[in-house]
Amino acid sequence: MNRAMIVYILGWVLNIEAALMLLPCGVAVIYRETEGFWFLAVIALCALVGMLLVHRKPKSTVFYLKEGCVATALSWIVLSFFGSLPFVLSGEIPSFTDALFETISGFTTTGASILSDVESLSYCMLFWRSFTHWIGGMGVLVFLLAVVPMSGGSHMNLMRAESPGPSVGKLVPKVKHTARLLYYIYIGLTLLEIIFLLAGKMPLFDAVATSFGTAGTGGFGIKNDSFMSYSAYDQWIVTIFMVLFGVNFNAYYFLLYRKWKKAFGMEEVRWYFIIILAAIGIIVYDIYDPSMSFSHNLRDSSFQVASIITTTGFSSVDFNLWPQTSKTVLVLLMFIGACAGSTGGGIKVSRFVVLLKTVGKELNSYLHPKSIRKIKIEGKPVEHEVVRAINVFFITFMIIFAFSVFALSFEGRDLITNFTAVAATINNIGPGLEMVGPTQNFGMFSDFSKFVMMFDMLAGRLELFPLLLLFHPSVWKQLLVKKSTKISAR
Amino acid sequence: MNRAMIVYILGWVLNIEAALMLLPCGVAVIYRETEGFWFLAVIALCALVGMLLVHRKPKSTVFYLKEGCVATALSWIVLSFFGSLPFVLSGEIPSFTDALFETISGFTTTGASILSDVESLSYCMLFWRSFTHWIGGMGVLVFLLAVVPMSGGSHMNLMRAESPGPSVGKLVPKVKHTARLLYYIYIGLTLLEIIFLLAGKMPLFDAVATSFGTAGTGGFGIKNDSFMSYSAYDQWIVTIFMVLFGVNFNAYYFLLYRKWKKAFGMEEVRWYFIIILAAIGIIVYDIYDPSMSFSHNLRDSSFQVASIITTTGFSSVDFNLWPQTSKTVLVLLMFIGACAGSTGGGIKVSRFVVLLKTVGKELNSYLHPKSIRKIKIEGKPVEHEVVRAINVFFITFMIIFAFSVFALSFEGRDLITNFTAVAATINNIGPGLEMVGPTQNFGMFSDFSKFVMMFDMLAGRLELFPLLLLFHPSVWKQLLVKKSTKISAR
Repeated sequence: MNRAMIVYILGWVLNIEAALMLLPCGVAVIYRETEGFWFLAVIALCALVGMLLVHRKPKSTVFYLKEGCVATALSWIVLSFFGSLPFVLSGEIPSFTDALFETISGFTTTGASILSDVESLSYCMLFWRSFTHWIGGMGVLVFLLAVVPMSGGSHMNLMRAESPGPSVGKLVPKVKHTARLLYYIYIGLTLLEIIFLLAGKMPLFDAVATSFGTAGTGGFGIKNDSFMSYSAYDQWIVTIFMVLFGVNFNAYYFLLYRKWKKAFGMEEVRWYFIIILAAIGIIVYDIYDPSMSFSHNLRDSSFQVASIITTTGFSSVDFNLWPQTSKTVLVLLMFIGACAGSTGGGIKVSRFVVLLKTVGKELNSYLHPKSIRKIKIEGKPVEHEVVRAINVFFITFMIIFAFSVFALSFEGRDLITNFTAVAATINNIGPGLEMVGPTQNFGMFSDFSKFVMMFDMLAGRLELFPLLLLFHPSVWKQLLVKKSTKISAR
Repeated sequence: MNRAMIVYILGWVLNIEAALMLLPCGVAVIYRETEGFWFLAVIALCALVGMLLVHRKPKSTVFYLKEGCVATALSWIVLSFFGSLPFVLSGEIPSFTDALFETISGFTTTGASILSDVESLSYCMLFWRSFTHWIGGMGVLVFLLAVVPMSGGSHMNLMRAESPGPSVGKLVPKVKHTARLLYYIYIGLTLLEIIFLLAGKMPLFDAVATSFGTAGTGGFGIKNDSFMSYSAYDQWIVTIFMVLFGVNFNAYYFLLYRKWKKAFGMEEVRWYFIIILAAIGIIVYDIYDPSMSFSHNLRDSSFQVASIITTTGFSSVDFNLWPQTSKTVLVLLMFIGACAGSTGGGIKVSRFVVLLKTVGKELNSYLHPKSIRKIKIEGKPVEHEVVRAINVFFITFMIIFAFSVFALSFEGRDLITNFTAVAATINNIGPGLEMVGPTQNFGMFSDFSKFVMMFDMLAGRLELFPLLLLFHPSVWKQLLVKKSTKISAR
């Protein structure tokens, strides 16, 4: 295990976090909030620790997937720990567990909040809260790859560990350029949303915070009623951008380079839109109410469908009051999630496409036992190894899910609350149903349950295995015990 | 597709059903019930159709897994159709859909009932209802293999399609002898339970019906309150026999032939008992009530755990009123199910053991990317193909599950009712929670929902793929269109 390299990466992550915290500082200056000083203190701390850690450049640049996963998981934990400090120090979220939950929920783009009164937070804290979504959406390590010169195998293995989806494609030959390109698209789309929201006369602060929440598919609202009190125009704009941020970013790359055929031929994206349209259709029909105009009905349906499938978690209506079929559709969408290679969470559309094709292939093997047909996506056969990894991902996901629901049951809440609380956290959505519905929050859970859900949020965002590795004793043995060359050479 | 052979098998299935219906006829004679005449009528019909179908012996004995699956699925549908006729003709279950639901629930050993007043049924109908559990438990085709001389590849492929579990082992070289041996063990254990219940002064009729329900892990009660009003002794006896019928029958074979080491070394059986003990432990603690004696608490916990994990579905207490953790444990047990090669349903312990080991292996592959370790059960490596089949089974199961919950949501009932109704039918258990809890029944569902759940029950009992094949258009093309030698040779 290349410890020096992991420490080096953690150092850079802290330095970047320090730099990123300058933004909420700026917000504090604008709004003349004294809470800004807490950010300065944490910046100093992050920078100090960060500088110490990056001081010694690692000699060995050998860096395998194992190291990539461990570095990524530890980075996210370190990031969340320091990111939660301003909330605790300022006293705006006095409990450390709560602050950590809120920060992990932010970075993992979940958007599940323990706060019952969001509006009482200071602007700089609100800004930081929404900004964590934006940072977490595209990933801090992808950012690091884009700005810090790295060597060895670290590029690809960090990218692979942090990026959502079953397989990570490099858009351009160099990882560094891919990472930059992704961030250019990400920043561009975010700015576009801010502009559209400003055009609808939304205040600048709201527009920026909302766009951060949309871009990262996070879902922290800055109002207590999430997005219910905003205008129809604002709701439509956010609906459209939620859907856009749930699209595989490769599609934007293809569009930018005018590879139209490739962009519109992406099977996952096609399925993504088919599922969205089908879900909207079912819900429009299911929540039909003669006293409500069709456009209002369509807007509510579209907003909620876009919010849940992209795992954003904004709400423009209390969908916990919707009829059963609509709620069931939303619960199913929670698991499907957005496209791979987007900022969204969930199991991902591409995985479900492969899973469904696996079932079809199995049926076919009963009919034609001797045929060796490979599963195809976009006409190209999917590698056996990828199919296997997707199967195992799904199984692992369900097992973690079951254990989490069991762990939450100790508190005696109803099954729907526990079930959807886990679904909303492991899929990085935010709200669930019943006691974790859109008008509720996660504050009432015990610390134990909160830690279970923090685990779920991180596991969901990092696609399970990087985080699970941290629970493997041999990893800690290799991390803590003085390394032998034999082990580190693996 | 060897149509002639499939028709021949269906004919034998009807003949056997006619023979088996003589038993409820006998019961009608004993209790002097005129309803017995309806059984005579149906026996005549079954025998007539059966004789016609077996009249022409098939020329080709070529019989692949495909034919085995289709023959099995069709057999179970035909069996259920004719089996439901006595209920309808006698007017005791006037609706055909209800009668079919009840009969499928019987044969698939589910035990989900549409009847609110079981006690109003005549004895011969009650007997037939419980007897379907016993027939379905070990499987009618296994019975057929034991008694009817068959040729070609039909033996193994029928056995494989009907037997629960990921892989079917022949206990003795000949399938016919394996089938007979299984039935000897089955009959022996059933008789033992009857004797033990009679020893506790249970009336003969109750003892026989209860033993049928236990042996098949079915769960139809003959009292409106299931098993609540029986004595502590009776409850313990049934608890023990439920657990015994959930054990892989190979264990009994090993015990019979004094292969102690093999019998006690079965990894699946060990896990099965570990899970049972753990679940009982959690529930004993969770439902602790100072006003109840420990032995009573232990009995309630054990009975419900045994009933749910073996997918029997008897209840000695309304566990819908239990605290959350206990209910969550029961819901998790619903999915785990009994051992492969037992009469129980669910996903099966052995599959879960392999699934968990798959996750472990995946984690390990991150740490040691180059190692090629196979998953091992009882120290022996599991074939890659078996692991793959288990993965696909789990995925298919979850997809059918999700679609079924969605289909049931149209009726507007709460998510827990729909979720556990599907869990209780696809896992062949019987009762779920809330509106399908132990004191409720399935009568209130619409015909559409009932057909969805009939599908689930059959899919669960036949382990998904044999039934799914019937929905593949090419199967019907091959069944109905005049066969070309090329297709039938596959």
